[in-house]
Amino acid sequence: MRLALQLAEGTKGQTGANPAVGCVVVKAGRIIGVGTHLRRGEGHAEVHALDMAGRESEGATVYVTLEPCSHHGRTPPCSERIIAAKAAKVVIAMQDPNPKVAGQGIARLREQGIGVAVGVLEQEARALNEDFIAFITSGLPYVTLKTASTLDGKIAAKSGDSQWVTGPKARELVHTLRHRHNGIMVGVGTALTDDPMLTTRLSVPGLSPRRIVADSRLRLPLTSRLVSDNASGTIVLTTERADRAKLRELEKAGVRVIVSGAGPQVDLRLAMRRLAELEISSILLEGGGRLNGAMLQARLVNKLRLFFAPKIIGGASAPVSFELEGWERMADAVQLDRMEVERVGGDLCISGYPIYPV
Amino acid sequence: MRLALQLAEGTKGQTGANPAVGCVVVKAGRIIGVGTHLRRGEGHAEVHALDMAGRESEGATVYVTLEPCSHHGRTPPCSERIIAAKAAKVVIAMQDPNPKVAGQGIARLREQGIGVAVGVLEQEARALNEDFIAFITSGLPYVTLKTASTLDGKIAAKSGDSQWVTGPKARELVHTLRHRHNGIMVGVGTALTDDPMLTTRLSVPGLSPRRIVADSRLRLPLTSRLVSDNASGTIVLTTERADRAKLRELEKAGVRVIVSGAGPQVDLRLAMRRLAELEISSILLEGGGRLNGAMLQARLVNKLRLFFAPKIIGGASAPVSFELEGWERMADAVQLDRMEVERVGGDLCISGYPIYPV
Repeated sequence: MRLALQLAEGTKGQTGANPAVGCVVVKAGRIIGVGTHLRRGEGHAEVHALDMAGRESEGATVYVTLEPCSHHGRTPPCSERIIAAKAAKVVIAMQDPNPKVAGQGIARLREQGIGVAVGVLEQEARALNEDFIAFITSGLPYVTLKTASTLDGKIAAKSGDSQWVTGPKARELVHTLRHRHNGIMVGVGTALTDDPMLTTRLSVPGLSPRRIVADSRLRLPLTSRLVSDNASGTIVLTTERADRAKLRELEKAGVRVIVSGAGPQVDLRLAMRRLAELEISSILLEGGGRLNGAMLQARLVNKLRLFFAPKIIGGASAPVSFELEGWERMADAVQLDRMEVERVGGDLCISGYPIYPV
Repeated sequence: MRLALQLAEGTKGQTGANPAVGCVVVKAGRIIGVGTHLRRGEGHAEVHALDMAGRESEGATVYVTLEPCSHHGRTPPCSERIIAAKAAKVVIAMQDPNPKVAGQGIARLREQGIGVAVGVLEQEARALNEDFIAFITSGLPYVTLKTASTLDGKIAAKSGDSQWVTGPKARELVHTLRHRHNGIMVGVGTALTDDPMLTTRLSVPGLSPRRIVADSRLRLPLTSRLVSDNASGTIVLTTERADRAKLRELEKAGVRVIVSGAGPQVDLRLAMRRLAELEISSILLEGGGRLNGAMLQARLVNKLRLFFAPKIIGGASAPVSFELEGWERMADAVQLDRMEVERVGGDLCISGYPIYPV
């Protein structure tokens, strides 16, 4: 199962709105097949592993990190494939959180006399697909909010200079995070200030997520790189107040515009639902302070990854990581659950899961 | 030497403007005397340890964490005491940074035919007395800036509510830090808002540092606890613009007022020199954002201890840890050297030494 999880881990970021899944087939003390889900719409992990095992699969034990599916989706159900392969036993890390499956795959296997054990390394399997689990159960993309600030919370100096806050190791890790999400989101302020590409740039090729810009008044210029170089698909979130002519121009340039709410600000919760419908299951939020704050205040953030550079820059007007209305009482603050602290090069990364005030 | 350092460590905070020093006397494989400097003006570590050893000290090896003094200060020179005790060898962790001694103690011992080794566990000994070393060489108090903020840098909610930012373990550690400094400093804003005691409150009795308030316009009320309960000595830093009548009232209430500069703000560097002359060798700075910022901008901070609670409170008007003019370029930020990260209960403490832009 450990190997199956490692197989899944490796494909994190390349399965779109599907979970990462790994599978290992074992018989008489030897591994006879390994597989992992490579791409949405293509074969599941079990299929690859059983293909490798071939006729040897009869009487084998199948280790799989997620309950085999029982429904006809983009591919035939994996539980049927396991039954056809005449496996003797299936060991499953976790039940599928997808309400379309929810134990039906397990029931189907047991019905056919196959021994099933569930819950082996379940915690690790849940952590691996924490984004998929939240997406499939909430109908909203899993949002990881990432910041890179000084210890006094500034993301740039008062002059606007932001090169660099964190060091090369932290910046590289952010590109790995981009690869692992299928959306990346900024506010139009960031788009106007930095004219970013928002692509994944690593020493090895990575996948670039869909680029999402929250832009209530459609200020994003047609000449910006997010519009002119529309390689990985740009989505603009706006409101009914947006200028219709500008909207059409953006659409003509290949940008997808989602009108979300009557304004003046983008209805972020509605926008998230629309993005989930577009199969954007996970978003890396690299907003400026206002968008970060609005997403947090709207309780749409699932995970925080806060990079801190060991420095203090000062400047009352220097932009900060979080701008939000906030709460009146310290006891009502958003709490960071399961905090982890990691040194990344010379910087720190503080991660955790927000618990919102009731 | 390790034991000698531990002996010294235990007395950190009770030796006033003197360094913490430990001493162990060893003969024929047995410890025959241990000592530590307990209080400024009283016997040094070597004297206590040699007193314990008594006549056995002849031919013994003396381990001491700091070079024995050679000058007549508040007590007779320790090097003479070692010579009189007929010790065979002296092992010293570090040379005395005090320019009044600076190797003279070592020279005096060698002159008398005593073997001297210097530099054993020197790094640890330097870390132990980092405050004393800076104080004695700069003529300024060693300033440790402590903050307790949320991850978005707020020291209170926008309502002013600050109970509590960090948890009980972090708050207890702050009281230990108070015990280990001989001054504690806040701005008058904090004094007006919180009416704090600024005493050391631990589960075991601790020493309370001198209380220092930066108050350019002498707004500190006579009814404040810092004035009315003047148990551990309050010092107010102000300017020549301050109201003379209020100044006399404060002095009549037992407060020491230091007039530092023509105003409008307190000349902090001059004030620090005056405090050093009063034998305040180390200060725990628990200022609000403005004082923290001003001290940092004036390059008067030697060490940072930043406690972060794992929470985000928001609020544009909520007070922050650092308010300072700041620098134009990110590359000019104050860097935190030798960063250490420690979990304190549910909170984090990030420590380090500021490197100021050139």
